This record gives sequence, structure tokens and C-alpha cells, in this order.
Amino acid sequence: MRSFGAGTRPPTLAAVLDIIRDQGPISRVELASETGLTQATMTHAVRKLMALGYVHETGTVPSSRGKPRRLLELAAGACYMVGIQFDRFAAVGVLVDLAGRVVARRRMAGAGEREPGVVVAEFAGHVRSLLEDAGVDRSAVAGIGLATHGPQDRDAGVLLTPQPTPAWLGYPVAATLAEATGLPVTIENDATAAGIGIQAAKDAPASFAVVFMSAGIGAGIMLDGHPYRGTTSNGVELGHISIDARGARCDCGNRGCLDTVAGPTAVASRARADAGLAARLRLDHGALPGTAPGSPSDPLSVFLAVAGAARDGDPAAAGLVEESARMLATATVTLVNLFDVGRVVLAGNAFTGDVGPVYRDALQAVLERSVFMRHVHTVRAELAPDVALAPAVGAAAMVLRSLLESPPAPAPQDADA
Amino acid sequence: MRSFGAGTRPPTLAAVLDIIRDQGPISRVELASETGLTQATMTHAVRKLMALGYVHETGTVPSSRGKPRRLLELAAGACYMVGIQFDRFAAVGVLVDLAGRVVARRRMAGAGEREPGVVVAEFAGHVRSLLEDAGVDRSAVAGIGLATHGPQDRDAGVLLTPQPTPAWLGYPVAATLAEATGLPVTIENDATAAGIGIQAAKDAPASFAVVFMSAGIGAGIMLDGHPYRGTTSNGVELGHISIDARGARCDCGNRGCLDTVAGPTAVASRARADAGLAARLRLDHGALPGTAPGSPSDPLSVFLAVAGAARDGDPAAAGLVEESARMLATATVTLVNLFDVGRVVLAGNAFTGDVGPVYRDALQAVLERSVFMRHVHTVRAELAPDVALAPAVGAAAMVLRSLLESPPAPAPQDADA
Repeated sequence: MRSFGAGTRPPTLAAVLDIIRDQGPISRVELASETGLTQATMTHAVRKLMALGYVHETGTVPSSRGKPRRLLELAAGACYMVGIQFDRFAAVGVLVDLAGRVVARRRMAGAGEREPGVVVAEFAGHVRSLLEDAGVDRSAVAGIGLATHGPQDRDAGVLLTPQPTPAWLGYPVAATLAEATGLPVTIENDATAAGIGIQAAKDAPASFAVVFMSAGIGAGIMLDGHPYRGTTSNGVELGHISIDARGARCDCGNRGCLDTVAGPTAVASRARADAGLAARLRLDHGALPGTAPGSPSDPLSVFLAVAGAARDGDPAAAGLVEESARMLATATVTLVNLFDVGRVVLAGNAFTGDVGPVYRDALQAVLERSVFMRHVHTVRAELAPDVALAPAVGAAAMVLRSLLESPPAPAPQDADA
Repeated sequence: MRSFGAGTRPPTLAAVLDIIRDQGPISRVELASETGLTQATMTHAVRKLMALGYVHETGTVPSSRGKPRRLLELAAGACYMVGIQFDRFAAVGVLVDLAGRVVARRRMAGAGEREPGVVVAEFAGHVRSLLEDAGVDRSAVAGIGLATHGPQDRDAGVLLTPQPTPAWLGYPVAATLAEATGLPVTIENDATAAGIGIQAAKDAPASFAVVFMSAGIGAGIMLDGHPYRGTTSNGVELGHISIDARGARCDCGNRGCLDTVAGPTAVASRARADAGLAARLRLDHGALPGTAPGSPSDPLSVFLAVAGAARDGDPAAAGLVEESARMLATATVTLVNLFDVGRVVLAGNAFTGDVGPVYRDALQAVLERSVFMRHVHTVRAELAPDVALAPAVGAAAMVLRSLLESPPAPAPQDADA
């Protein structure tokens, strides 16, 4: 039986749909047993999912008691969701079906220093292309999940930060993309979305931390299948914790922030400052962070080039990557010491290719010697199955969750909830 | 109506008892309205609480519909709980009645480097004294809550750490104290207990962080009235996060741990190392950390003496306290950035007297300029109403919670929970 944790009331429809997806074809009796819900609550949920067209009956199995049991199965193509993750230097988009399969994907340019309106219009074009690529009609799409950095006002669908440029502070990104596409849009923290995306996979762990690195560094916590939210959904800002209390002042007001020491922009700046390494990597000395995203000289691309050189034996590059990994590991120990989790999953565009394993291995070594409760339980570092796509997949999954959880669908037994 | 948060099933008996305590005398109809529970669930809970003798009827009020409504009231003296918080340098004990009032209290010696058996026997003596002081019979005591440092195995009632001495690692502290007193004993993390103790007060906030400082530094997170637990109840170990990734190696395996930089032991060591300050405070240069607890030269007492000297204008003492407060503030920003809470409450023996306000004010200043989401919501630092007693009071409250929540008392409507 799947446990929802003491005192936790499961979001019934989403939970039932997940089990039908993972274990179907399945009978109602088995479903009730898997969820611990009563037959009445289960029947109500299945009726609702069938009315939505998400679930249908397919054949029967004999039953020891009376008539054969009808089996339920997911209608994977009944509904699609779009997920987009973007930041200053990178963006990816996916189209996901009801079974959680990615049926189309696109790499897109990051926001850079362009006007928000220009970026959102480009995203709308990519959404159309995703649907064309997969041959899916817009009417079959439930909505768009947009994952990006925080702080955010999730309810209002606006960013509460002057990043990547001041024009994004308070910009109605959800409403504008909704108008441009004709689809509802929800926003989500990118690292939290990565956690949801990782959990969408079959046999994913129920509780883990996500360490996310793309243009910046973030984190998410999944506990018993649910994201940790804090009081305003703006928690787990790993990039702006101090790992050097006497360090340089960061734009955020704090000192010695992880992002300014270990993030891709910091590594790229140091690589540019090393004349020999810069020459070997053919970096344009004149180009600064903020270069056109997707160009070979934007900081994320430079970071990935440094990591590639480190893999190929360049000692200066290896030194920069090792230092970044060690600082990220220090912050990850903080994350684990505070949240008490046993798994750390790496995700984000900065862990693509050969970079991911370098960070994973550095992290594992530090976790094993530094986590406070390591004698109580092990802590394992691993890479997300698809490090670059996880946040976009999670953002798409959030669309379905929001749809199934709001408005609530109380069964008769749920009146005292 | 009191909100239990989406998807959260309230521990019914404890919630009903809390409302009768805070708002009684109260009718069943008002109770149902306050909790959002059905009349049937409410009636069942009240019947159970009356059977336990915790609640009784007291008079009536007229009703607009039919017969007068009977009012329910807490029987404050029907049940008592003992709470003890201890660490290396300090210990306090309280006896709390069902209304949450502290009816007796004792300051006790910390564990020091004594054998666990000696310390536990001393605690058992203090429990007898607490009951004598209040004139309460042991048969009226529901149990003892024991709050101390982690890591712990709460289910087994043992500490999973070789602190204060290796003899405590795996020592059956709960079972031994239970045998010595004839009362059930539950153990709890001290900082988490402080959070529960703070929340036991009327009109306490539902969500906040606790920063706890006594022999060492810890933290707790309360969210919607419930402690954050993590995967093994061993989270929020603030004392062993690194605030200097290149700092000195700590016994725990990490580098530049907050506790080794900002904790009372660190401040006391620095005070001893400053010949002028040590002379002014009449510190015994020969005595080392680990001195008999409660003696004027144990590190916590030295820390409090340094804080007193800082208040009286000693610049060397003020420098040590300011440095400690600044480092603690840096770690508290990390706590807030990760958990996204809007209040930070200070508790623990190290914040007694004039020390608390110094740390609170230093913390508030740093929070206002460094917290990542400070433009989204304010973050306020405050002192617990009773900084020294909060963990013991919380440990006592945990006894009642455990009693009411286990075994579960399902109402007929709860069958699908």
C-alpha cells in the first residue's frame, strides 16, 4: 500500500491517476487497496477521471467472488501538457502526454537581456512548434507550466525579482504567455519543478533534495511525494546562502553566496580571467556575462566548455571545476543537515554531458565525510535521469496536478476533511 | 475557522483539546465550527476527552434553536506532564498541567562528563521533587518528555551521538529514566521541542523558525502548527552547517561549522585566550571546556559572563559577542532562505538575561538586508516568551500529543483516512 504519510490527506484524483498510469490495467479493488481509500471514494474518483476521458475500461479479469472485475487503463493521448524552463542563458520546452511521456522537445534561447515581451512571444512560437512536431491539436492541451527562478508570486503568475533584467520584476509573464497561446499558464520555481519532474518517473523516490544548476543555483525538497513549499513557495534558495560569512557582498545583500562562488557565471568569469585557459578555449576576452544566450560565449556555454576541457585534462579548467564542485558540496551538506534527506539528485542545464558525473562524485565524497546524521542514515548523490529536461517535465506535470486538485472533488465520505 | 492546511488531516483529539483550552467554556456547535470537523466527528472526540477526564461540562447557554447548549471546559488538573531539557552544561525541568501552565520548575545541572546512569538517576530525583513542589501525585502524570541534542532515534529513545561523552551513544536514556520514575518517557530534539513549547502559548504564530542556543546551536521549523521532521526527525542541525567552506575541520567532519565559530564554547574559549578579558572576568585560565557544569567556569556560564561584560561596556567582550551574533545571523539567513519562513524565534539557555536582546537585534538587522525573499515578505526576529523553559515546556506538550494521537481514535467518518 502506498503511504501518504501520517496526517496527510492525499489529493485523490491525482493519486488514483498516478497508480492507474504506473500499474494499469488495474481493477477498482486493487486500486482501493493500493491507495488505502474506501471503495466509495475510489469509485467516485474513477467516475470523475472517466468523465474527463483520462481513464477508460479495458477488458476484465475473473474474480473469486461473483462477476469479473473490469480493468481500468490510462488514455495517454486524452490530454497533453506543455512544460517550459527558462533562465538567462538557457531554455527548454517539452510536450508531455497523460502518461508522462515526452512526445516533443525543443531547445530554446535563454532570456538574455531581451525584453520580456519578445521572449514570451518566442516561447509562444515554440509552443506552436511543439504541437506541430507531435501532431497534437491545441484543444487537447490542458495548459502550460513555466518553470523559472524565484522569488515568484505563483498565484499572480509574476516574478518578484529584477532578474535577468529589471524589466522582469512584476512582469505578468503567465498572463502574457496565456494570451499569446490561448492556454492557461502556471508558474513554478525551477528547482521545485525539477523535483516534480524527477518524481514523475516510475519508481522514483518519495523524498529527496534537488540541487539545480543552470544560469544560477537553486534547490528543491520533495517529501513523501510533495514539494516543500515554505510559507510563500519561495524557499530552498540554495544559490544565495553564504558559504563564506566574511566573503564578498552579493547583489542579494548577503555575503559569500554560493552562486557567486560556485555557479556557472563565476566559473566562466574565472576562466576568462585566466589568459592561458581563455586562449586554449578560444574565449573572446571582450565578451562579458550577458552575451547573447546560446552563443558560444554566454557564461553557461563557457562553463560547459571549461568542464569539457577539465575532462580532457586541462589542469586550470580542472581546478576551476573542482573548486566549484567543492563549494557546491559544502552547500549541499547544509541542505542535507537542515532538511534531513537521504538522497540528493542533480538536475539542470549545467549538469549536461560529462559535467554531471564530476559534480555527483565530488558531492558523494563530501556527503560521506561531512553530513551530520551520516551515522543515522546514508546520503546518496545521483543525477536526474534527464538532467536538462527534468524542470520542464515537472512544470508540465504541475499543470495536470493543478487541474485535478482544483476545484476539489469531495466524495460523500470526505465531508469532514 | 482554524486552518489545518490543504491536504492535512488534523490530529483530532489534540486539536479539539487545544480549542477547548484556548476558547472554553465552549459549546459543541462552536467547536465544530472552529475546527471544520463534522458534528459526528466532534461528538466522538468530545466523548473520548470526557472519558479521559480531560474535559467536563459546565453550565449551558441558551440556543436560538431548541434546548440550551451545554458548555465544555478543560479539567486543567486532570493530567500533568513533565518536561526536561538537558545538554552538557545546563538542564531544566518543568511540571505542566493540562492547560499548559508551568506549575513547578527546577534548574538542574547539565550532564557534563558524568556517566549517563548518574545523570538519569539525578533527573529521576528532580522529577520526584517537581511533583512534591506542586503537590501532584505520580498517578496524575501522563509521562516525561526529554529534550536534548540530536541525532536521536526517537522511536527507540536513544541518542545516536557520542556527545557529551561517548557513553551516551546508544545509551537507552528513555528506558532508563522510565524505569527510574515509573513513567513513560519520550525523547525529542531540543530545538524542535522549543518550537512546540513556543507554540503551546495562546496566540502563538503557526509557522516560524526556532534558533536554539544552549551548550550548542540547533534549530527547529514549525509549519502550520507542526514540526518539520525530515526523513528521520534529525533535521535542522544548524550548528553543523558550514559558514566558512575553507574553515577548520570540525569533529563532525564538516568545515567551519557555525557551532565552532559562534557557539558558547567558542566564545568562552576566545574569552579565556584573551588574557585581559580573562583577568577582568576572573576566569580560571587552567579550566577547560568540560568543567563541572553549573560551575562558574563551565563554557555556558563563561559565555553568559562575557555577554554581561559586553553589556557593561567591555570592548573585548562586546567584540566576541558581536562576532558570534553576526555569524549566527549569517546561518539564520541560510535557514530562512532555505525554509522560507517569516519569523525567527530565539530560545535556549544561552539567550537568558541581557544576552537575548543583543542577538535578536543583531539578527533583525542582518535579516533585513540579506534575506533573499525580503521583498516578498518581512522576516522578524524575536525572543521566546521564556527562552530557557521553552524546550522543556515543549517536551511536556509532546507527551500529551503522543498520548492523544496514539493509538488513533477513528470516528465512523474517518474510515477512509
